[in-house]
Amino acid sequence: MSRSAEINDIEQGLKFQPKFDAAGLVTCVATDAGTGEVLMVAHMNDEALRRTMSSGEAWYFSRSRNSLWRKGETSGHVQRVVEMRVDCDQDAIWIRVEQTGGACHTGRRSCFYRSLAAGEGGERLSFVDADKLFDPAKAYGKDR
Amino acid sequence: MSRSAEINDIEQGLKFQPKFDAAGLVTCVATDAGTGEVLMVAHMNDEALRRTMSSGEAWYFSRSRNSLWRKGETSGHVQRVVEMRVDCDQDAIWIRVEQTGGACHTGRRSCFYRSLAAGEGGERLSFVDADKLFDPAKAYGKDR
Repeated sequence: MSRSAEINDIEQGLKFQPKFDAAGLVTCVATDAGTGEVLMVAHMNDEALRRTMSSGEAWYFSRSRNSLWRKGETSGHVQRVVEMRVDCDQDAIWIRVEQTGGACHTGRRSCFYRSLAAGEGGERLSFVDADKLFDPAKAYGKDR
Repeated sequence: MSRSAEINDIEQGLKFQPKFDAAGLVTCVATDAGTGEVLMVAHMNDEALRRTMSSGEAWYFSRSRNSLWRKGETSGHVQRVVEMRVDCDQDAIWIRVEQTGGACHTGRRSCFYRSLAAGEGGERLSFVDADKLFDPAKAYGKDR
């Protein structure tokens, strides 16, 4: 197949052919199925993709721990997958989920609890939707 | 600073200290500010971050073309940034945007125009919100 036919097949076809990076991962964005809020950005390897599809709950691959990881395994804060989508070049996955508790290991609903803006003295962050829903010290061993 | 104090500063502080990967990039998710739909997942380097913040329009770094890229430069399909957020460990950015036209180089509103599900014979994709809003052949030189 020519390169342009191959690209056309990846982009316009209905065959799932995830484009893993050098580490064997695709990027995954999880959003709240109800509100559209971005909850987290993480990674999946082939096994995490399979388990997510077969179980209907999100599995990821932790780069920092170098291991497969069922979201909520320790904390109980699982993500039930309502819909999975793949992007044009098949190197990113979007999952719409029903999130139990909070997605973030810091105790928040979303990992994106700070906004970023250019200020007079450079960039500045400010807290947005940053209330803690749970105490990470109680919820976790090392799950994040 | 100890490693745990450093992590606390990154996660709980208000100093923007993006954690670029080995290629100098952070992951960026762009969502439609109105609907919450994920439009695309791309990357920003330091310069793309600065230009996005100073101009209020999305700039990215194209890994395939190895160059800085103003979204919509060729097609006119710019993204006006309504809000920028950073995640807990500061290696991912979420931008809520007003998208002119379509975000995807294939002509669709979003790059995520196919859903993914486990079927009897393995995974299958199906088109969702896959109508083309524009003709890529007319809109682009190489902008994507």
